[in-house]
Amino acid sequence: MINFQTSPDRYKHWKLSFEGAVARLSMDVAEDETLNEGYKLKLNSYDLGVDIELADAIQRIRFEHPEVRAVVVTSLKPRIFCAGANIYMLGTSSHAFKVNFCKFTNETRCAIEDDSQHSGRRYLAALNGTASGGGYELAIACDEIYLVDDGNSAVSLPEVPLLGVLPGTGGLTRLVDKRKIRRDRADVFSTLAEGLKGKRAKEWGLIDDTFATTKFQDGVDERVKQIVSEPRTIATGSGESPTGIKLIPLTVRAGLVRAPTDSQGRAGTSPAPTDNNETRDYKYVSLRFHRDKRYADLTVHAPESDLPATADEIQKLGDDYWPLRAFRELDDALLHLRVNEPEIGLVCVRSEGSIDHVLAVDKTLAANRDHWLVRETLLQMARTLRRMDLTAKSFFSFIEPGSCFAGNLFELVLASDRSYMLNNPEKAVEVALSELNVGAFPMSNGLTRLQSRFLADQKKAYEAFAHEGPFDTEAADEAGLVTFAPDDLDWDDEIRLAIEERTSLSPDALTGMEASLRFAGPETMDTKIYGRLTAWQNWIFQRPNAVGPNGALTNYGKPTQAKFDYKRT
Amino acid sequence: MINFQTSPDRYKHWKLSFEGAVARLSMDVAEDETLNEGYKLKLNSYDLGVDIELADAIQRIRFEHPEVRAVVVTSLKPRIFCAGANIYMLGTSSHAFKVNFCKFTNETRCAIEDDSQHSGRRYLAALNGTASGGGYELAIACDEIYLVDDGNSAVSLPEVPLLGVLPGTGGLTRLVDKRKIRRDRADVFSTLAEGLKGKRAKEWGLIDDTFATTKFQDGVDERVKQIVSEPRTIATGSGESPTGIKLIPLTVRAGLVRAPTDSQGRAGTSPAPTDNNETRDYKYVSLRFHRDKRYADLTVHAPESDLPATADEIQKLGDDYWPLRAFRELDDALLHLRVNEPEIGLVCVRSEGSIDHVLAVDKTLAANRDHWLVRETLLQMARTLRRMDLTAKSFFSFIEPGSCFAGNLFELVLASDRSYMLNNPEKAVEVALSELNVGAFPMSNGLTRLQSRFLADQKKAYEAFAHEGPFDTEAADEAGLVTFAPDDLDWDDEIRLAIEERTSLSPDALTGMEASLRFAGPETMDTKIYGRLTAWQNWIFQRPNAVGPNGALTNYGKPTQAKFDYKRT
Repeated sequence: MINFQTSPDRYKHWKLSFEGAVARLSMDVAEDETLNEGYKLKLNSYDLGVDIELADAIQRIRFEHPEVRAVVVTSLKPRIFCAGANIYMLGTSSHAFKVNFCKFTNETRCAIEDDSQHSGRRYLAALNGTASGGGYELAIACDEIYLVDDGNSAVSLPEVPLLGVLPGTGGLTRLVDKRKIRRDRADVFSTLAEGLKGKRAKEWGLIDDTFATTKFQDGVDERVKQIVSEPRTIATGSGESPTGIKLIPLTVRAGLVRAPTDSQGRAGTSPAPTDNNETRDYKYVSLRFHRDKRYADLTVHAPESDLPATADEIQKLGDDYWPLRAFRELDDALLHLRVNEPEIGLVCVRSEGSIDHVLAVDKTLAANRDHWLVRETLLQMARTLRRMDLTAKSFFSFIEPGSCFAGNLFELVLASDRSYMLNNPEKAVEVALSELNVGAFPMSNGLTRLQSRFLADQKKAYEAFAHEGPFDTEAADEAGLVTFAPDDLDWDDEIRLAIEERTSLSPDALTGMEASLRFAGPETMDTKIYGRLTAWQNWIFQRPNAVGPNGALTNYGKPTQAKFDYKRT
Repeated sequence: MINFQTSPDRYKHWKLSFEGAVARLSMDVAEDETLNEGYKLKLNSYDLGVDIELADAIQRIRFEHPEVRAVVVTSLKPRIFCAGANIYMLGTSSHAFKVNFCKFTNETRCAIEDDSQHSGRRYLAALNGTASGGGYELAIACDEIYLVDDGNSAVSLPEVPLLGVLPGTGGLTRLVDKRKIRRDRADVFSTLAEGLKGKRAKEWGLIDDTFATTKFQDGVDERVKQIVSEPRTIATGSGESPTGIKLIPLTVRAGLVRAPTDSQGRAGTSPAPTDNNETRDYKYVSLRFHRDKRYADLTVHAPESDLPATADEIQKLGDDYWPLRAFRELDDALLHLRVNEPEIGLVCVRSEGSIDHVLAVDKTLAANRDHWLVRETLLQMARTLRRMDLTAKSFFSFIEPGSCFAGNLFELVLASDRSYMLNNPEKAVEVALSELNVGAFPMSNGLTRLQSRFLADQKKAYEAFAHEGPFDTEAADEAGLVTFAPDDLDWDDEIRLAIEERTSLSPDALTGMEASLRFAGPETMDTKIYGRLTAWQNWIFQRPNAVGPNGALTNYGKPTQAKFDYKRT
């Protein structure tokens, strides 16, 4: 089982250090500390384990070190920055694992850009040696790239010429859409296994500058100094130098479901957790697996009543504050479902607790959004919801008595492929919107989920927002906020049938369908990476020319050579 | 060999009739007239042959019947409009064929929307019976959809639930991006094999209206009458009722290359054409195949000197006018390369003739762009260039003495993945821009190819346009218009190496790479269809869950049932 929780004291591959407003994130991959057997992480190449630490480090910089203004991403290995994803790991991984690995890597790189764009931290890739493949892709996720000019070090994307696959974790898209390299030069660069060195790389726009070996450290330091001396453009809401909070790795309790007491009143047993547990419980989020039926229940619990209303109190509560805690748990649950539960095809989203408590939290968040910690919390919630949009599972929301789909939690309904709301006038079944639904949680395409839902008639989004108080089932249905509103008599059957039907369909067709229907409207660099580029890479990851016995990926580093079927498709 | 040239007198599957300003395009598929063995085109299902006729019919409406304001797309079969692409044809086709078939179908549907958007013709899908799968996808390419309410007829996208593939020829994208169906309803609709009938279909926005059987004809006629009575919004430049020109199917001469005369002065032989010919010559376009080296030369010849300068003369010349003729030939050559020459991976683009003649044509086209025939010609040129952008082959342009890459033909250089321009100060090697390069030929993403090339610095596009007269090699290189400018000494070697290197790479990786690098910048509904949707469909077309022995596509209509690997990817 792959664990996405870590912390700097457990890192095996990265060193994270701080000096005033500067963080230094140094790659020093331990080649034997792999997630799986059968490969060594030579030359700072990476597997998912390396990337989980990187994702954690970026989170920690944001929450634990808000004083940081510049992040230097570099390597502690001589002459090599990073050789990209480990080829032997890719060559021996299942298709599903490869796809999920690439998706997580993409999300981590987008998280760097999210930090840069919304929290104003500047990321510098200090390439003290060659950055190839995923190594250069990591570099172009940073704001600025500096390459040592030692006569040898280069930047390169050798995937096409050497491996018969794409630089598919953002590489091709960022070349032409972020760095805006001329397409013919991007074509040349992406087919040139050895890549380009300092002067030419700079001329073509692949790097920002190059320094001779002896001047490299000074050159980068100079630029860092300049950045931290510039006035801060993003408010912290807490004086000049905000103090961070500590992110404790989440604790998870896994277990079998306690069997109901039997007719003699004997309680069911609850054996020790195993890898094949039926439940996975966090503090506010819980998962329950129905593996034989290929679906899982995901329930989010509302906050308690006594949550803080001021930024100071929130800061004191730290990572135990409900929005941060609940959405970090949700994030971990989504990653767990993706990687550790591949056969779960459908996630049934539920919520429990007080709508008022959820709305109170939203009110506090909205009132304090200029405070650095509240901003980071909102951005973390937004990233988690985007992770949900990008998860290759179906999501159905079920809205029942006792649920609390309001404000931030209503985004889970909007992010679902469908929603079912019980229509029973005798029981209170309600949903509600808050200020946060109209801007705080943009999708990858830049729209809010309400805008995306009402693309045909934006007025409906405004009307829904203007509605006073919570919506009962009929009002929610009328406003277009839910898909179906079955009554009490039909509810159980309709839900059972919907689940059975969904889990019987081709999982691949559903993935392609959901990836198309979830992202109506504009496209952005992010959606191009997850849509166009990723879909092509997934196609190539299925093609015999890459992964067949004669494929280039299969044969990399072997004495045998790739043999292609040259039919162009 | 598949032939893309046809005309109404040869149609087997469509009836095209005209009455004043109304064209009627009626589907009546002959089930035995298939392109390949092994399937019957029942229930107005289609194969590539049916779609070639549809594409031809749309072209003819535009050029031969400019008086037409409304096109009614309907069926002559009772109770069925169209059942979509033939499943057994798909099930027995190679992957490469499936992909090319879908691409052509997509281009044909985009051509309907191009006609609607730029020439102001309104397309009405008159669904006299069920429209399922590709049948409904054809309908949503039209501007308006009317469905008979006979208690039985429905619109549906049964691909996901029945076949384990996507409605991948525009279906999913147009659902949410064109008709802007709410994503949860689109989800339900796309998993509901039986689809939706009149009332519900209208309520959800899947159709525009529904009429009882007895009122169907009248209802559609009424709407048509309304359309043709509205004032024309697009100028014809030739009075109220323009007269069309005739499009004669292109003639092609295929042959073996004449061997050079031998040392005794005996000429080489030139045997009769076969399917495996080494050349394919049109009037202005010629192809030469180097099949053992997996590349082809494509040469476009400039117009003669005495081309007309007025719209009247152009109209008289008809389909023999160079821009129309040359680009129709280019279009056919691209389709031929895609479908009949799958192993050709690289197309070397060359041109021959007078730059001045090409620029004179552009001047005439620009001066007369409000004339209906000139407008249609420009739009046809633009579609052909987009077909090139979307062709899964590499394109390298070679600019040598005697070439004429100017104005409209310079778009071929801009559409190429790379360009090589000989740098020999002793010979005139020139390229030139014209007014047409800055607006007449938008790519699928809405940008001109100059804008797309200079995304990093739009000023360069303006500077290039403002340049006086043609560019010699150094000026072109300086302006960023070409990729490489080798001198005479290096030219042959550099080109030989570039060709050898390109054709040695994985054809799949190149397809994915080119599809990513060619479309920097914004995305549109078109690019979403060719990028996101198509790439996912191609992936699914490779997945065992669709095409393996237990796959849903393979097992459709057989007594055996599909068995899925339920791992979600």
